[in-house]
Amino acid sequence: MKIAPPEEGLLSLNTATVREKWSLREMIEGCARHHIRGISPWRDKLAELGAKQAARVIRDNGLVVTGLCRGGMFPAADRKGRQAALDDNRRAIDDAAILEARCLVLVVGGLPSGSKDIAGAREMVRDGIGEVLEHARSVGVPLAIEPLHPMYAADRACVNTMAHANDLCDELGEGLGIAVDVYHVWWDPQLEREIERAGDKRLLAFHVCDWLVPTRDLLTDRGMMGDGVIDIPLIRSWVERAGYRGFHEVEIFSAQNWWQREPDEVLAICRERHQLYC
Amino acid sequence: MKIAPPEEGLLSLNTATVREKWSLREMIEGCARHHIRGISPWRDKLAELGAKQAARVIRDNGLVVTGLCRGGMFPAADRKGRQAALDDNRRAIDDAAILEARCLVLVVGGLPSGSKDIAGAREMVRDGIGEVLEHARSVGVPLAIEPLHPMYAADRACVNTMAHANDLCDELGEGLGIAVDVYHVWWDPQLEREIERAGDKRLLAFHVCDWLVPTRDLLTDRGMMGDGVIDIPLIRSWVERAGYRGFHEVEIFSAQNWWQREPDEVLAICRERHQLYC
Repeated sequence: MKIAPPEEGLLSLNTATVREKWSLREMIEGCARHHIRGISPWRDKLAELGAKQAARVIRDNGLVVTGLCRGGMFPAADRKGRQAALDDNRRAIDDAAILEARCLVLVVGGLPSGSKDIAGAREMVRDGIGEVLEHARSVGVPLAIEPLHPMYAADRACVNTMAHANDLCDELGEGLGIAVDVYHVWWDPQLEREIERAGDKRLLAFHVCDWLVPTRDLLTDRGMMGDGVIDIPLIRSWVERAGYRGFHEVEIFSAQNWWQREPDEVLAICRERHQLYC
Repeated sequence: MKIAPPEEGLLSLNTATVREKWSLREMIEGCARHHIRGISPWRDKLAELGAKQAARVIRDNGLVVTGLCRGGMFPAADRKGRQAALDDNRRAIDDAAILEARCLVLVVGGLPSGSKDIAGAREMVRDGIGEVLEHARSVGVPLAIEPLHPMYAADRACVNTMAHANDLCDELGEGLGIAVDVYHVWWDPQLEREIERAGDKRLLAFHVCDWLVPTRDLLTDRGMMGDGVIDIPLIRSWVERAGYRGFHEVEIFSAQNWWQREPDEVLAICRERHQLYC
């Protein structure tokens, strides 16, 4: 099956991709210069301007905020830690509302320090999302669970499959959806079925990068689209068949390669590769 | 729930754990010296003695071969490559028969070079196992699919969950089972259910080590039981509830730590940790 290239206007930049060399303002202006219409800031970058000023600069440059990264990190060893996480999530939701972000991405968190109880951590995630969901609904910010690759189950996110994310959406209801990042889910034999199960309403974001062979670091050795083994057009065809019409957000953690390059070069290559390999 | 310590006599040594400093003969004699009754050789070590002599030395030292590592690696870019894999698997099956191994462990293989077609690779795996299964049955060697962690999907094994392994067993029938390695499957929310589904007949091996936080290398930074976050007794309780009564095989790839230590020290620690953390 030949899959047509994606619509150019659907490219979005996740700020992680150029986080080492550019400020948020430079990223916003860089996107505008490269005709990239979407941006998804991480909160460390957002803090440079604050949500209100960032929202203004983003709007002035004609960009859409395709997501705010990130909320989550719900599990904690004690009640105080869990409460701090809830408070932080409510602040992130408020920032996402100011930015008119399409969603707040949730990296849900792993095992509390010293714990081996992954089932317990998963309950804390469910309860934590449940606690903040009403606030998110009230300000109109959809929450997007991002299932992370199982290699992050211990320390970053104990939701590692679309099936698990869909189960949480079933249980918790309206206002909760999923961010599909091909890097995290490409290997899953249930992926096509679970994307269909999620459907248009739950599919809140689509992140792209590539899985390199070999991968030299668990966190910061992600590849540019086309440099790895993920059949991105195939996965895109599945999310589109499910009704997704949103942006394609490039998020590349790459300490040794892409973070070292000039961001203007990175953005130009993102545009090319989006057309060729997404 | 308090889980009773495992039976001491069920400890087995996978030769990968001490592969850097000992020959196969030293490993066999080391196991006997440390009252470890099971051994699971890798084929590179087996080649030192050849299967027949190895079988004799192992038997003379009173050990059981809990598995032979490994067959598999079925996907290949062309017919010649796939045929070579089948031939190699038949030789591995014959060696396993000579060793009276409880199973031949299959690391099924990843994507052929240059391919992004993981569904196609999975078909090659199914077809490849199907091709060699009759030979395995005829010589009485059960084949054990080892689902590998999803971080190995591209380059080592495209069967990454117990559910997928169970599906293959359903499809291919008698003589095929599963090797459960806690390192590869501990994160899976469907693990308990899929171990139950596998049942006594399919559960052919149980491998233990631990997932370290942080993990510094995708391949060679596995931990000794107790040094990581896996609740091994819980998973053991699941395989035992399903009827498994076989060995607990310690397989640790650890370039910077355990491979550097004196193997006699490593074996003594394996024995302690087996009682404390398995």
